[in-house]
Amino acid sequence: MAEKRIGRRTIEFASPPAVAGFASVVCKKEGEGPLSGTFDIISSDPLFGEKTWEKAESRMQKTAFMKALEKAALSRTGIDVIFGGDLLNQCIGTGFSVREFGVPFMGLYGACSTMAEGLISAAMAIDGGFAVNAAAITSSHFCTAERQYRFPLEYGGQRTPTAQWTATAAGAVILSEKPGRAVLTKAAIGRIVDLEIRDANNMGAAMAPAAYDTLSALFEDTGTCPSDYDLIITGDLATVGTRILRDMFKADGVDITSHHDDCGMMLFDGTQDVHAGASGCGCSAAVLCGYILRSLEERLLKKVIFAGTGALLSPTSMQQGESIPGICHAVCIEAR
Amino acid sequence: MAEKRIGRRTIEFASPPAVAGFASVVCKKEGEGPLSGTFDIISSDPLFGEKTWEKAESRMQKTAFMKALEKAALSRTGIDVIFGGDLLNQCIGTGFSVREFGVPFMGLYGACSTMAEGLISAAMAIDGGFAVNAAAITSSHFCTAERQYRFPLEYGGQRTPTAQWTATAAGAVILSEKPGRAVLTKAAIGRIVDLEIRDANNMGAAMAPAAYDTLSALFEDTGTCPSDYDLIITGDLATVGTRILRDMFKADGVDITSHHDDCGMMLFDGTQDVHAGASGCGCSAAVLCGYILRSLEERLLKKVIFAGTGALLSPTSMQQGESIPGICHAVCIEAR
Repeated sequence: MAEKRIGRRTIEFASPPAVAGFASVVCKKEGEGPLSGTFDIISSDPLFGEKTWEKAESRMQKTAFMKALEKAALSRTGIDVIFGGDLLNQCIGTGFSVREFGVPFMGLYGACSTMAEGLISAAMAIDGGFAVNAAAITSSHFCTAERQYRFPLEYGGQRTPTAQWTATAAGAVILSEKPGRAVLTKAAIGRIVDLEIRDANNMGAAMAPAAYDTLSALFEDTGTCPSDYDLIITGDLATVGTRILRDMFKADGVDITSHHDDCGMMLFDGTQDVHAGASGCGCSAAVLCGYILRSLEERLLKKVIFAGTGALLSPTSMQQGESIPGICHAVCIEAR
Repeated sequence: MAEKRIGRRTIEFASPPAVAGFASVVCKKEGEGPLSGTFDIISSDPLFGEKTWEKAESRMQKTAFMKALEKAALSRTGIDVIFGGDLLNQCIGTGFSVREFGVPFMGLYGACSTMAEGLISAAMAIDGGFAVNAAAITSSHFCTAERQYRFPLEYGGQRTPTAQWTATAAGAVILSEKPGRAVLTKAAIGRIVDLEIRDANNMGAAMAPAAYDTLSALFEDTGTCPSDYDLIITGDLATVGTRILRDMFKADGVDITSHHDDCGMMLFDGTQDVHAGASGCGCSAAVLCGYILRSLEERLLKKVIFAGTGALLSPTSMQQGESIPGICHAVCIEAR
């Protein structure tokens, strides 16, 4: 077994990388939700001053990264590597955002789990001795996702009750080998789990079994249980997936309900007409880079599992009758 | 500076991870090219027994991974993490390939540089103490890429002289902390370089400046010059990009020509009507998992730089008038 592994699946960082800076940028609807006060920037313009939705998404992501750098009191040249990706075909939201920075870049594709995957990658780069400072960035935009995955915006398609609303949001985290108020102590890399869900409007159900798989492994490997954490936060299972995840643990005799919440349920409230809740890479990224990391810095939370979930489908795979593979990457973040 | 960094951009592995197994799977046209004898499996069926091109690509990638495992005398459960991706929207070639393995998975998007990005990620995971064995996998398929990026296959569009032919090929490498005959000693993570090329049929020109940027950094950081290597192999600049790369070094007074070759120029020969040469994630992956690693194992080559190049465009970004961002990740592989 590798020296920094415990159990089957869990990584334990020898020198836990610290959060040096973080920032979230969201749009109007997200800014009107219950987490409004936790974001760095709330834009009233969904085009963020650009001419296309795709360029708007890049601009939003770039803004989040620049703000995180500012909060970390670092310049771009101080970042050894950026890990990032998004939902757009060929990850252009990120490619065109990172292009101007001149910083070494590793592109990721983890669908809505991208922020968790990026955090683990950045933490491994630092704890492995390959970087002093590394960043994880991601974004999603309602308008780019809707037209790519579903229907033209102008069509105004009716949404099913299990559907989730793609958040227009971006998040950026800068990790550092230098000490900080929140550190990444452990992580579990997800496996693909596919229980044959074939409804692209029910991604929560497709991702919940992956969240169960990764969280179970983390609990088992570390000999911990849900009550050992102030918060276990999945992102983004929304209401349908959350119910399934809690039921799966209940079948094992484990009650996670009182220690669990979900980014997809936290970003919007019941009056915002988002059906099952929020989704998109930007959803869990903005909740992390807003509510979660602020609460850890202020020691309102002391030990958190951030478990990003992703549905690895494409419109083509759905048209070809494939089911939806789910994945969940989890990272344990603790206040110091 | 991080302990395993030398110079501005280069990583030096403390305990160089070794190649435990590798395999390449290609289709008929690739199997008729000059590297024919170096591949593990040459299929005469472009559908690989499946019903769609996308499922065929997944099947091909899965086959490469299983063959690499077999050659490494390892089972799936012996692999701590797989790093992989491909060119398809939402990387479904890889998602659906990895789904059946039950192995922790980190999805990458690096376009045609994916194999190099995966190798660096896997080597960092091992040298960082997070994994004993890690895999890098990728693939491309002429038919999936053609219809996604260009035209329906049935249209039979005319190709420009600068166009490259997407290889139908997959490669898998298994790295291990245990000793082996070829080891990864150094790496340089690429930055995005964009010199405003706007012709999607001239990706070699878009990627060459990125190859120059990464290779220059590697030479400078390590105090080496092209003649210190038996082979510097880019993939896949093809004829147009290769000429540009060599000219850029010539302007610095550095002649790389006699030590340089390109995967995009090696996979096919002049009689195969591929215009500027080959491309696709599978191109550099199959050349690596065929000619290059075999030559290193047999000590016909002793010190190689494998520099994977990628063009981070999408059909949408081209339609919106964007230029093509290029990236190049380089890794130094040495015979032991």
